[in-house]
Amino acid sequence: MSRRSLFAMIGTVAGGAVMLEAMSRLAYAGESGFNGPIELSQDSKGASVLILGAGLAGMCAAYELRKAGYKVQVLEYNDRPGGRNWSLYGGDTYTELGGFKQEVRFDKGLYFNPGPWRLPHHHYAVLHYCKLLNVALEPFIQTNYAAYVHSTKAFGGKPKRYREVQADFDGHVAELLAKSTQQGKLDQAVTREDREVLLEAMREWGALDKNYEYKKGVLASERRGWDSDPGGGLTSMPTPSEPMAMSDLLKSGLWGAISAGQIYEFQQMIFQPVGGMGMIGKAFGRELDGLIHYNAKVIDIHQDDHGVVATFQDAKAGGAPQQAKADWCVCTIPATILGQTPINVGAPMKSAIDALYYDASVKVGLQFKRRFWEQDDAIYGGISFTDQPNAMIGYPSTDYFSSGKGVLLGAYTFGPSAFEFAAMSPEERISKALEYGANIHPQYRTEFETGAAVAWHRVPWTLGCAGHWTEELRDQHYDNLCAIDGRIVLAGEHASRLPAWQEGALLSSLDAIRRLHQRVQAS
Amino acid sequence: MSRRSLFAMIGTVAGGAVMLEAMSRLAYAGESGFNGPIELSQDSKGASVLILGAGLAGMCAAYELRKAGYKVQVLEYNDRPGGRNWSLYGGDTYTELGGFKQEVRFDKGLYFNPGPWRLPHHHYAVLHYCKLLNVALEPFIQTNYAAYVHSTKAFGGKPKRYREVQADFDGHVAELLAKSTQQGKLDQAVTREDREVLLEAMREWGALDKNYEYKKGVLASERRGWDSDPGGGLTSMPTPSEPMAMSDLLKSGLWGAISAGQIYEFQQMIFQPVGGMGMIGKAFGRELDGLIHYNAKVIDIHQDDHGVVATFQDAKAGGAPQQAKADWCVCTIPATILGQTPINVGAPMKSAIDALYYDASVKVGLQFKRRFWEQDDAIYGGISFTDQPNAMIGYPSTDYFSSGKGVLLGAYTFGPSAFEFAAMSPEERISKALEYGANIHPQYRTEFETGAAVAWHRVPWTLGCAGHWTEELRDQHYDNLCAIDGRIVLAGEHASRLPAWQEGALLSSLDAIRRLHQRVQAS
Repeated sequence: MSRRSLFAMIGTVAGGAVMLEAMSRLAYAGESGFNGPIELSQDSKGASVLILGAGLAGMCAAYELRKAGYKVQVLEYNDRPGGRNWSLYGGDTYTELGGFKQEVRFDKGLYFNPGPWRLPHHHYAVLHYCKLLNVALEPFIQTNYAAYVHSTKAFGGKPKRYREVQADFDGHVAELLAKSTQQGKLDQAVTREDREVLLEAMREWGALDKNYEYKKGVLASERRGWDSDPGGGLTSMPTPSEPMAMSDLLKSGLWGAISAGQIYEFQQMIFQPVGGMGMIGKAFGRELDGLIHYNAKVIDIHQDDHGVVATFQDAKAGGAPQQAKADWCVCTIPATILGQTPINVGAPMKSAIDALYYDASVKVGLQFKRRFWEQDDAIYGGISFTDQPNAMIGYPSTDYFSSGKGVLLGAYTFGPSAFEFAAMSPEERISKALEYGANIHPQYRTEFETGAAVAWHRVPWTLGCAGHWTEELRDQHYDNLCAIDGRIVLAGEHASRLPAWQEGALLSSLDAIRRLHQRVQAS
Repeated sequence: MSRRSLFAMIGTVAGGAVMLEAMSRLAYAGESGFNGPIELSQDSKGASVLILGAGLAGMCAAYELRKAGYKVQVLEYNDRPGGRNWSLYGGDTYTELGGFKQEVRFDKGLYFNPGPWRLPHHHYAVLHYCKLLNVALEPFIQTNYAAYVHSTKAFGGKPKRYREVQADFDGHVAELLAKSTQQGKLDQAVTREDREVLLEAMREWGALDKNYEYKKGVLASERRGWDSDPGGGLTSMPTPSEPMAMSDLLKSGLWGAISAGQIYEFQQMIFQPVGGMGMIGKAFGRELDGLIHYNAKVIDIHQDDHGVVATFQDAKAGGAPQQAKADWCVCTIPATILGQTPINVGAPMKSAIDALYYDASVKVGLQFKRRFWEQDDAIYGGISFTDQPNAMIGYPSTDYFSSGKGVLLGAYTFGPSAFEFAAMSPEERISKALEYGANIHPQYRTEFETGAAVAWHRVPWTLGCAGHWTEELRDQHYDNLCAIDGRIVLAGEHASRLPAWQEGALLSSLDAIRRLHQRVQAS
């Protein structure tokens, strides 16, 4: 469990200790350090920069360095820009390590993001480049009160609505604290003056009645929903619903899901590009048209006093090695790959590259014949959480009320269950995601059409999802990873304190080229 | 204070007792009783129905009765369909009671909804008709963690971010309850078995540290935000922020704002029509083209054994009274107006009409030269709350990241402050909204361009915002208001248990015509 990442754990129903651990580990994930467009003043001195990798970090570097007058070229392993900024559409093919090839069969207009899918409103750098590159954005919905929270071990395996768990948790907590307060048990912690306000706050926030009790009635139903609904005219009398007992709720672990939307990165507003996350990579790619050499597999990186030489092969055809040369190099190749690539950097950077390992993560996209989650369950966007290995079901935050088909995120998992999923064939992953999902949405059984599954440890160009920093690793290696080594500087989400976020990749890149530019000025 | 409505109070910082009272009063506000499209089986028997009012209730009745074979005509006071379903655009004019005429000067594409602005995801009837009438919907954002919560009496009048208030409230509550639990003070209320889970839950939910304390550090900053932001590369170290003390937070009253999004009607997802709420009324109006007689001011309603006759005048030109006749009548005229219109119904219905009074409410729309709330404050949609008379600032849930102008909801207020606003000229209302808003957004002072203000007690065709039911009024009059009286049945939000909601108007209408249809079948 301890290896699971925040991104999966927060909001799952696996329990709190894991989340705490995950939060401590990520440590510095938070608001972006972007302070407006970068300005690389003065002169590039005619210098050239070789950029390895056309993910967001590499393309950001290429864009800004070109603008500052540098001669720029980019080598990219894939036949497309974006890297982990990636959406799969019908007609796409993807071959993973181990040889499994998937031909994606989603209908036109539908997609699945194997990598990042969220742009928090305080990730200023990524929002800046979206605006700059005319990438249209729309709201991404994280928290949906109609979505489900599900544990196979609680309430007979029947999912609860998020609103029920949220309301009952708040209500019971408020009642317990109000009781303590009334009985004078908080007298040491709360002044007499604050006591009355605290009671008032508990009553309002927890939807308690006049006796400070959270129980079946109008007040609780106004939060958790009704058993039968009020309406108009003479056929309109509603009936209140019955809250869960606190003991049942505590034992269920379902309360683990209600903190998700409170986490800085998951706080509303969040955005997504219209048409798929990959639109950002595509826009950057268009902007850098002609600068990116695709299908270039870097097999050696060598620097000396005069410059940097990258040797590469055609990633598909193989053949004779070619070389690209420049005065300087911004290398955004993931540490997993870079650690296997000969590169003559000093021991501190080399140790840092070797020390960093990458999280396992698996995502599964599932296309259904109709949007039953909207039509049958009134769930428009948002996420349902489960204690099953698929961890969550993400509903599309777009095309609401469409009569057509839809693609769900059928699994998004980290840690042990990600390794389990990764060990399966893509077909088996899809099959498992369907099995788990049907315990929440029985409609899965009749409405499923086609799917796609990406296990990040089998992605040939990353061998993992994102850099996994512990506090110890950071103390020992982070500065060495980021420092300029001769003529080479590294960039990417792994060289940031916003790991796994595109914002981290961009901020890392901006910091790297700012320092590189200073070095050029000084040289 | 006791007259203030839920719709203003929930989420304001005025304090908890009021909210409790508001919730009790509204009592049965909740999920829609819509169970799929209405089917009026059998035969209309060639009967005709006169519908008074082309708001949503009236037009829904017209649409469904026509479909069932009835001869339908609609009389409407205004020169447009929709009633309180209404958006104001540049070029519109509006004259209120007292003679103030406003010429709306918003730029093309911008609008302001004087009436309803939200469609909860469980208001199935209104969503059904939006789909049926091809009204495009987009997410309406209620809760935005970047929005402000503001009290003139706390923190030197400096607004806090919603995320700070939310995080600190949860954190302090969790710490207090965890302390009580640890000290064995909850032993009567919580079993030994549940104790450990409760502690774990408090730690996770409240972002407490290992000692169950909520304090400055990584965990708290991951909820409430950082003082300086983490980033990438070597310039990335963040600094944690300092939580508010519980005592300060309690005294501030700001905690009153964090329950808003927990209320059933305000729970995500919520939708709005693209282009303004009035799009629903317009779509209904198009659908009923030729059936609606606009500018028809009803001055008398008379029924006898053979049918119903409505006498009306041209609302603008006056002139000779005209008459409209039918076998039956669905009257959706607000009780405020109907109470002043001669109508020969029995004492029970007449008493009900006379007994119901209407809430006061005022809304002000303000156009600014640029979207500074997005560009300067990273607030995309959502609501800021304040203890000033304007009560809230609503940010547009559309056109995010636009470089153009934007229209804010600069005031949305009920109760005493609504009466204060209503007593002013529209210009003064706008001026006051600007004065209050500038205490939260100083940019108001330089960016304001033009505004519009609607005080519902001065709206000639409603004389108030919505029917105000107390429990006592409901017990005494509700059934009498809704019962068919001879050949007349009333419909509208006032004849529902979802007062002030469009869903209530539609459900009331559907219930009314269902009963009317039965009566026709039986006659």
